[in-house]
Amino acid sequence: MAFTNTRTVRIEWGDCDPAGIIFYPRYFEIFDASTALVFEAALGMTKFQMFKNLEFSGFPLVRTDARFVKPTRFGDDVTVESTITFGRSSFEIEHRLSLDGETCATCSEKRVWTVRDADGRLKSHPVPAEVLAKFGV
Amino acid sequence: MAFTNTRTVRIEWGDCDPAGIIFYPRYFEIFDASTALVFEAALGMTKFQMFKNLEFSGFPLVRTDARFVKPTRFGDDVTVESTITFGRSSFEIEHRLSLDGETCATCSEKRVWTVRDADGRLKSHPVPAEVLAKFGV
Amino acid sequence: MAFTNTRTVRIEWGDCDPAGIIFYPRYFEIFDASTALVFEAALGMTKFQMFKNLEFSGFPLVRTDARFVKPTRFGDDVTVESTITFGRSSFEIEHRLSLDGETCATCSEKRVWTVRDADGRLKSHPVPAEVLAKFGV
Amino acid sequence: MAFTNTRTVRIEWGDCDPAGIIFYPRYFEIFDASTALVFEAALGMTKFQMFKNLEFSGFPLVRTDARFVKPTRFGDDVTVESTITFGRSSFEIEHRLSLDGETCATCSEKRVWTVRDADGRLKSHPVPAEVLAKFGV
Repeated sequence: MAFTNTRTVRIEWGDCDPAGIIFYPRYFEIFDASTALVFEAALGMTKFQMFKNLEFSGFPLVRTDARFVKPTRFGDDVTVESTITFGRSSFEIEHRLSLDGETCATCSEKRVWTVRDADGRLKSHPVPAEVLAKFGV
Repeated sequence: MAFTNTRTVRIEWGDCDPAGIIFYPRYFEIFDASTALVFEAALGMTKFQMFKNLEFSGFPLVRTDARFVKPTRFGDDVTVESTITFGRSSFEIEHRLSLDGETCATCSEKRVWTVRDADGRLKSHPVPAEVLAKFGV
Repeated sequence: MAFTNTRTVRIEWGDCDPAGIIFYPRYFEIFDASTALVFEAALGMTKFQMFKNLEFSGFPLVRTDARFVKPTRFGDDVTVESTITFGRSSFEIEHRLSLDGETCATCSEKRVWTVRDADGRLKSHPVPAEVLAKFGV
Repeated sequence: MAFTNTRTVRIEWGDCDPAGIIFYPRYFEIFDASTALVFEAALGMTKFQMFKNLEFSGFPLVRTDARFVKPTRFGDDVTVESTITFGRSSFEIEHRLSLDGETCATCSEKRVWTVRDADGRLKSHPVPAEVLAKFGV
């Protein structure tokens, strides 16, 4: 079962390069924030609160693939739809960024749920049951 | 006479540094976008549309001063109030960024209204009367 | 035949997130600059000079895949090896980012060589022969 | 007595905006890294090592003023001279960014030396004597 969150993002002047179109690393900033918002939508807590309230030390990215279909420009209000599917200690997110219904970019991410071990190092950890429950998994 | 625009901005994980607080260059990204939104609020056009519809080739910053009073963190929804006052070919903007009513950062900017000369170089130019009129100046 | 350029990059405090490790969109900024340096190494001109001297209006990214194997931290001086192979109007770049010989991240890019058409729009264009010649293709 | 460190920085494509010139928040990223390099030059340790080896939890910015005199462009190799003067628990840095000897931007910063208190909060703290000694103060 999949859970989707949708939001609108303004592309800013400072996100764009001398060609007048978005500088693509800014898309990954948008996608990273979109992933946090998927959890906020389901759990009702910000990422900051997740650190405080859950067995959680971040969900670092292990892999991402992205396609850039159509450029966007400053002033564009784009839509980002982000769909999550869970593994045991990891999850995948598919982002679709569109403008007026037309796909501009797609991105898939694989991330790992982590906690810190006794030495303070990040290690993977099963996604907590209480988290899965909020996603209806 | 001054014109003020107010907006809310979410501080993101990727805006923050290893101390867990916002990396201050991100504030200037926020302030730059806030300045564009002052014009959008008054003129009813995005900066992209300003380039198309006005004698306008940007408003580069010539000076900025900022004070950082209280740190903000990822997940904070901060308020940015931006107040503009016009000179002849320039304008000043005062930004106040606050969280729950408490000032976190203030920033003043001086920017120049520019057009491109015959060689394509930016040069200062009086702010068009139609722009001033929309601001009630 | 492939052409490789290698450079060293310092990971900065401001590249890192509250987990103390690099915020991954910064890797894409590093890779984008590394791609420009591949051309600078072969052509003896910066990207700015390429715009002035070649039939060239940018090489927008159409696809990228990246794997993040091992985090890096502020103060790390990482090595980026970037290898280019040419198609007709496009090219692929493989970046390998390593620290002390250990791979931390890999990234593959597909980019399109573009020029502007009569309406100022970017369209793909064969990589100029003079460019290929400098790469020994 | 003042201590100065000088370095060269390449302005990148991704640092520039649709006007083709540097997006000014990128200057603050450059200045922040330049400040860390002042300490690295004097102490012989990176900021990462400073956290490990000194009574030190960061030097957050409390005030900055900057002037933008002349734009820079992608491909420019600019020089940044950074001069530090110490107070008791704070220091001031003056950055001068120039291209071929011509000043493009200047920036002054006031920062506070901090340590974490028992609750993990940052508080100001006298700059350690061993640090001052390395700067010849």
